[in-house]
Amino acid sequence: MKNAFYAQSGGVTAVINASACGVIETARRHKGKIGKVFAGRNGIIGALTEDLIDTSKESAQAIAALRHTPAGAFGSCRYKLKSIEEHRAQYERLIEVFRAHDIGYFFYNGGGDSADTCLKVSQLSERLGYPIVAVHVPKTVDNDLPITDNCPGFGSVAKYIAVSTREATLDVASMAKTSTRVFVLEVMGRHAGWIAAAGGLASDRDLELPVVILFPEIAFDQAKFLGRVAAAVKKFGYCTVVVSEGVKGADGQFLADQGLRDAFGHAQLGGVAPVIAGLVKRELNLKHHWAVADYLQRAARHIASKTDVLQAYATGKAAVEMALKGRNAVMPAIKRISQRPYRWKIEMAELKDVANREKFMPRGFISADGFGITEKCRQYLLPLIQGEDYPPYRNGLPRYVRLKNMGVKKKLGEFRL
Amino acid sequence: MKNAFYAQSGGVTAVINASACGVIETARRHKGKIGKVFAGRNGIIGALTEDLIDTSKESAQAIAALRHTPAGAFGSCRYKLKSIEEHRAQYERLIEVFRAHDIGYFFYNGGGDSADTCLKVSQLSERLGYPIVAVHVPKTVDNDLPITDNCPGFGSVAKYIAVSTREATLDVASMAKTSTRVFVLEVMGRHAGWIAAAGGLASDRDLELPVVILFPEIAFDQAKFLGRVAAAVKKFGYCTVVVSEGVKGADGQFLADQGLRDAFGHAQLGGVAPVIAGLVKRELNLKHHWAVADYLQRAARHIASKTDVLQAYATGKAAVEMALKGRNAVMPAIKRISQRPYRWKIEMAELKDVANREKFMPRGFISADGFGITEKCRQYLLPLIQGEDYPPYRNGLPRYVRLKNMGVKKKLGEFRL
Repeated sequence: MKNAFYAQSGGVTAVINASACGVIETARRHKGKIGKVFAGRNGIIGALTEDLIDTSKESAQAIAALRHTPAGAFGSCRYKLKSIEEHRAQYERLIEVFRAHDIGYFFYNGGGDSADTCLKVSQLSERLGYPIVAVHVPKTVDNDLPITDNCPGFGSVAKYIAVSTREATLDVASMAKTSTRVFVLEVMGRHAGWIAAAGGLASDRDLELPVVILFPEIAFDQAKFLGRVAAAVKKFGYCTVVVSEGVKGADGQFLADQGLRDAFGHAQLGGVAPVIAGLVKRELNLKHHWAVADYLQRAARHIASKTDVLQAYATGKAAVEMALKGRNAVMPAIKRISQRPYRWKIEMAELKDVANREKFMPRGFISADGFGITEKCRQYLLPLIQGEDYPPYRNGLPRYVRLKNMGVKKKLGEFRL
Repeated sequence: MKNAFYAQSGGVTAVINASACGVIETARRHKGKIGKVFAGRNGIIGALTEDLIDTSKESAQAIAALRHTPAGAFGSCRYKLKSIEEHRAQYERLIEVFRAHDIGYFFYNGGGDSADTCLKVSQLSERLGYPIVAVHVPKTVDNDLPITDNCPGFGSVAKYIAVSTREATLDVASMAKTSTRVFVLEVMGRHAGWIAAAGGLASDRDLELPVVILFPEIAFDQAKFLGRVAAAVKKFGYCTVVVSEGVKGADGQFLADQGLRDAFGHAQLGGVAPVIAGLVKRELNLKHHWAVADYLQRAARHIASKTDVLQAYATGKAAVEMALKGRNAVMPAIKRISQRPYRWKIEMAELKDVANREKFMPRGFISADGFGITEKCRQYLLPLIQGEDYPPYRNGLPRYVRLKNMGVKKKLGEFRL
């Protein structure tokens, strides 16, 4: 009976801990087949440095609370393994650590880059003769993994952006007579416009609201954009612009990169929201406000999508079940079975088909003018934001768990990354 | 039996419509004493331009839904009446409109500037001989009105900031090993640091988190601030900075005013968050992320404080009851009766004591080093964020009401503002 290694990688989400919960609870239910679950402190770095957390020291209650706790309870990392050829010493170290702690199962919870790391670890068996079963648990707010219909983490950020866009647009509607006419909200998504698309859900048949979306998939056309905003303001008196951080001009440059300097000549950090707001002010002479959601959007467990929480848990659970069947180099993927009512199941994807590939918004999901979402896109997105899954509160604040995260006693010497 | 005029003024909040609900439902309960409630479209401008909304055309269900709908359902305005001496024509116009629509009660829902407008309207009786009873309904996210223990609208933004700061700090904690070490969140409050203070609630005995706060009441000291951040990062590995938009340097200049220029020499809009983040990067060489909450914070009805919703409703209700007793030039104020358990009641404040005065954070609410809140401040703030009051959802989104807002037939000629 082998122990398992689990770690979190890349940008965290509101529900990555729900996947951790799924992995750990499922492993605990198979005590005859899996020993302990050791978590890597800060992702794969925890494996390389033998910095392991003994999750068996955590109570059932604490593990259950992961389900409603955002961010990465064991710490994450941005660290990509090189190939076995390039950095053989790292892989030998991994084997050394796994052997020392009797680890036979490897679960890695992350996005595209992390799937690549997981794929490389899965090759330890075949290439270096260490028996390991490696299963990737999908996670990314960017929703850009292939094969799977959607990615755990995305539904919650989509719900947050849809709800926030609706709320802020009602605000600007109230102010438009004498003050703010345009509200600009910057959202994540450097390459793919999935999160920006969620802003389009703010407006529906219940409540029509003018929302103009700027996608990274569509080259920014200033004149067309200003015309679109002016038309919305003419019709409604106000409008909201949801802009992806990754929007680029026709020259391929990020709009956020404006070479800003302060009065002292210091290079200044930009966001794309102030660039868009400045444009609206300069060219249309409209009052504006702007917001940058940044981490707030992906950490917002308080308004997580219930569907997302269920799927995050289910992928964690399925990963353990696949590992127990000896399936190496795979990933649980979400398959949409039906649209109305929305039904889904977990399938198994080959990791080689997942790693290092990005899924962009199909052109058919973006309206002809490039500033909105189509009905097809709406039908894709809506099921993913269904249901609320409120965390418990104490004293006015969500009661998020902090684990003890007790280290496993080291058996090996130091390793330099 | 006279009709009533109700209007919303200044920046809107997550619960100003709950006050509207309190006013309208209470007036409806006193049908023998108050006629119709006419709402001003876009605040006092609706009165001046005779642009009145007949709220009697709205169903009981629609009015009840105001309780969970953010922003200003009738439109707000930023428009301050001059004194009767300076602009007599405006006051004569108000009388003309009130007379034409048989209005004897005036309810104005706003902050300090709006209290001034309400006070001026209350003088119509004495100064210009038109019998009116004017009652102000307090509202401001800034929590800066005097007399009242706190302001409706503040508790919800405080809850949003406390929750969001907790969530984003868990996020940066996860990322700190290889990536982001400092997260900067810009919040509202140009003059008073009440909202920034709410960031301090994110950390408590349940969950200790390093949060450094920058208040507008404390002149920014760069060296001291950088030392504070460096110390937090040394101890925890990461930290969050909650910065009020109104933070100024020792020279009295807003930190946000950095004279930014883009590569083309265009003046660029700044926020204070990127300034602080840039400083942390330049001087401490720490990776960072930054967010600007802007309208999201004050529109976030999805995570409103239940206490705040109750108080917003109660002040609206009390305003009508005071008016029915003929009390002119007053405002329902919240009085804290006991701390544990938190109990409060509505008292009556004289409007002349409220208008044009700002309440800043007492120095005793800010920690000695100027970067945190004291226990006294915590005890003041905590009751205000208690309880959740979730709106109903449909199809994954909060079901906010949009009223019919049918206009009252005009009886008078045009009036130029």
